[in-house]
Amino acid sequence: MDIKQQALQVHREKRGKLEIASRVPLETKEDLSIAYTPGVAEVCLAIAKDKDLVWDLTMRGRSVAIVTDGSAILGLGNIGPEAGLPVMEGKAIIYKHFADVDAWPICLDTQDTEEIIATVKHLAPTFGAIQLEDISAPRCFEIEERLQKELEIPVFHDDQHATAIVALAGLFNALKVVGKKIEEIRVVISGAGAAGIAMAHLFADAGVRSIRVLDSKGVIRSDRPEGSNPYKDRLVSRLEALDGVDHGSDLRSVLAKADVFVGVSQPNLLTREDIKTMNEGAIVFALANPVPEIMPDVAKEGGAVVVASGRSDFPNQINNAIVYPGIFLGALRGRLREITSETKIRVARRVADLVSYPSAQEILPTMFAPGLAEEVANAVMNREL
Amino acid sequence: MDIKQQALQVHREKRGKLEIASRVPLETKEDLSIAYTPGVAEVCLAIAKDKDLVWDLTMRGRSVAIVTDGSAILGLGNIGPEAGLPVMEGKAIIYKHFADVDAWPICLDTQDTEEIIATVKHLAPTFGAIQLEDISAPRCFEIEERLQKELEIPVFHDDQHATAIVALAGLFNALKVVGKKIEEIRVVISGAGAAGIAMAHLFADAGVRSIRVLDSKGVIRSDRPEGSNPYKDRLVSRLEALDGVDHGSDLRSVLAKADVFVGVSQPNLLTREDIKTMNEGAIVFALANPVPEIMPDVAKEGGAVVVASGRSDFPNQINNAIVYPGIFLGALRGRLREITSETKIRVARRVADLVSYPSAQEILPTMFAPGLAEEVANAVMNREL
Repeated sequence: MDIKQQALQVHREKRGKLEIASRVPLETKEDLSIAYTPGVAEVCLAIAKDKDLVWDLTMRGRSVAIVTDGSAILGLGNIGPEAGLPVMEGKAIIYKHFADVDAWPICLDTQDTEEIIATVKHLAPTFGAIQLEDISAPRCFEIEERLQKELEIPVFHDDQHATAIVALAGLFNALKVVGKKIEEIRVVISGAGAAGIAMAHLFADAGVRSIRVLDSKGVIRSDRPEGSNPYKDRLVSRLEALDGVDHGSDLRSVLAKADVFVGVSQPNLLTREDIKTMNEGAIVFALANPVPEIMPDVAKEGGAVVVASGRSDFPNQINNAIVYPGIFLGALRGRLREITSETKIRVARRVADLVSYPSAQEILPTMFAPGLAEEVANAVMNREL
Repeated sequence: MDIKQQALQVHREKRGKLEIASRVPLETKEDLSIAYTPGVAEVCLAIAKDKDLVWDLTMRGRSVAIVTDGSAILGLGNIGPEAGLPVMEGKAIIYKHFADVDAWPICLDTQDTEEIIATVKHLAPTFGAIQLEDISAPRCFEIEERLQKELEIPVFHDDQHATAIVALAGLFNALKVVGKKIEEIRVVISGAGAAGIAMAHLFADAGVRSIRVLDSKGVIRSDRPEGSNPYKDRLVSRLEALDGVDHGSDLRSVLAKADVFVGVSQPNLLTREDIKTMNEGAIVFALANPVPEIMPDVAKEGGAVVVASGRSDFPNQINNAIVYPGIFLGALRGRLREITSETKIRVARRVADLVSYPSAQEILPTMFAPGLAEEVANAVMNREL
């Protein structure tokens, strides 16, 4: 039986993957009188008097809402909230298993930006943080920004930031392997959706001075007449101000003499010959899933020294699950109101440092590395272990 | 240490009562590839093709949202969504413990009827049923009615219907004890909030022909100039059409010659002398909590034959937890779209029948009765055991 059939069978047998559990016994009337009435009234009154106690006396301080509108589920596209639920359940149990965080899927039956924002705002009091998941670009940018402004808990769009943080951690170690400095490299990012745009901003925040980003129409540029949106425009202004050099407007021209290629776009975009045009010591992160922009062995044949993909069956998997459980653990523990860019860079450095001897075959820890969530959480809280 | 201190301590130590758990292992890459990517994509695609499969392949068919706006938490009033969370957590673990139903609290930061309706509609796809909890009257009526019309899953306001069902079950057995027929009794209900109004409708549906309902201003009547709302008006039209007799407009006048008093109102409303004015074989359900409308022993001194209260330290506790876990279990199993009045009466009859020999001391099973949730669920699905 292949993995697809196994997955269907397990989901059918178990009727999904996520369930609830009680942290207290409920065997006797006495148990009930503590967990429920009349005892619970005292807990309610304590919180009514001092709202801040909700963090100590309830599940709120352990809880994350995983919110999707079903518009960009995995690589499957806009398949709707019901079809997205299995992914959200999977995410929730990963949180619990790796970071003891209690997450609950909220699959919305609307894809209207204003309705999503209003709904999430209204349901926030149960949760200590909001994770936006698999919401398509560019709506995801506005939804995250607006919610983060209006709520006093972290709002974090995984597909943007978790992927960007892990890619940055991988980049830190890949640069050690090839012996280059972050200020000196030229980076090409293929894909101007949630992950591509967030990655470009985070790389720039971390010190990269030359970044070109492409969408399906080529390099996004201020002098390109069409096919933009406010989020691409904002990014382009920033990147053009950074180095002010014209490297061209198509993939081949910007790839020539580049040091790093990151793909979050489409299968089979690059050939061995393309990689050969890159600078010596090329770094290739081909993250399209399940079929990458170029297969790792082909990239190596083209001269790439460090190659990473989104797949678990090759070395160097860029997997956002390396950081997201620990990020929410740290955000909840530290009662953060926001995950800032400094925090993201700090997490990326800590993750990179977990690899004692970075090599072409190992630039990142796996998500199973012992103590990983604790390390990430401490980085989020800016604490040493 | 008293119960209040114990409750505070347990809630603080455990940081609330509800957590999540995984139904599948996550120890290896293989486990992850089934629960998450790439295997989960097959499950998503199956649901995208046939949306109905969400009930078989995900948590939806086991899940209930417990929704509150914090406006009527226990008897504590409008203490807000954060202060209501401990009650919602308690309810959720009761569902799990007694009926293996997976419930999750949703505490809303709005008390606006339209915003509550919009929010619940938008978050419905994750859930197989909606339980409205501790939302004040009369908004609770409109919210429930509108949501039930617009959603294809059951929307059930516990404070209205679960209490009414258990009271009706108790009434069935109390009538056996005193040897009266349901069509012949005169019932007085004190309290025209969520529970009182729902109870009056359900009792009338079940065959009671004379019902008077009082609010804080006296008997609600069509000729009363003020202090009404559309839900009281609708009830009054129905009740006045039922028997067309004028029994008066204050508590004392309607209580004289009544067979049944049900209080869902305020402490210490009645005296022994009041009970003496009722018909022989009087039935008194004094459900105000924690201090009832009349203490059970005083009601007995006044001549009441069957006395029930909302408290666990007297016989005959009218506790909505006797039915709500089983109601949602049945609704989810049977994939019901609505809990109709017929269903509620059927559940009340089944619960009453679980007491083999009803007596003045025992008109109801306790919530700990073995197999209770299964019995209730079968009644909901109209199935014999």
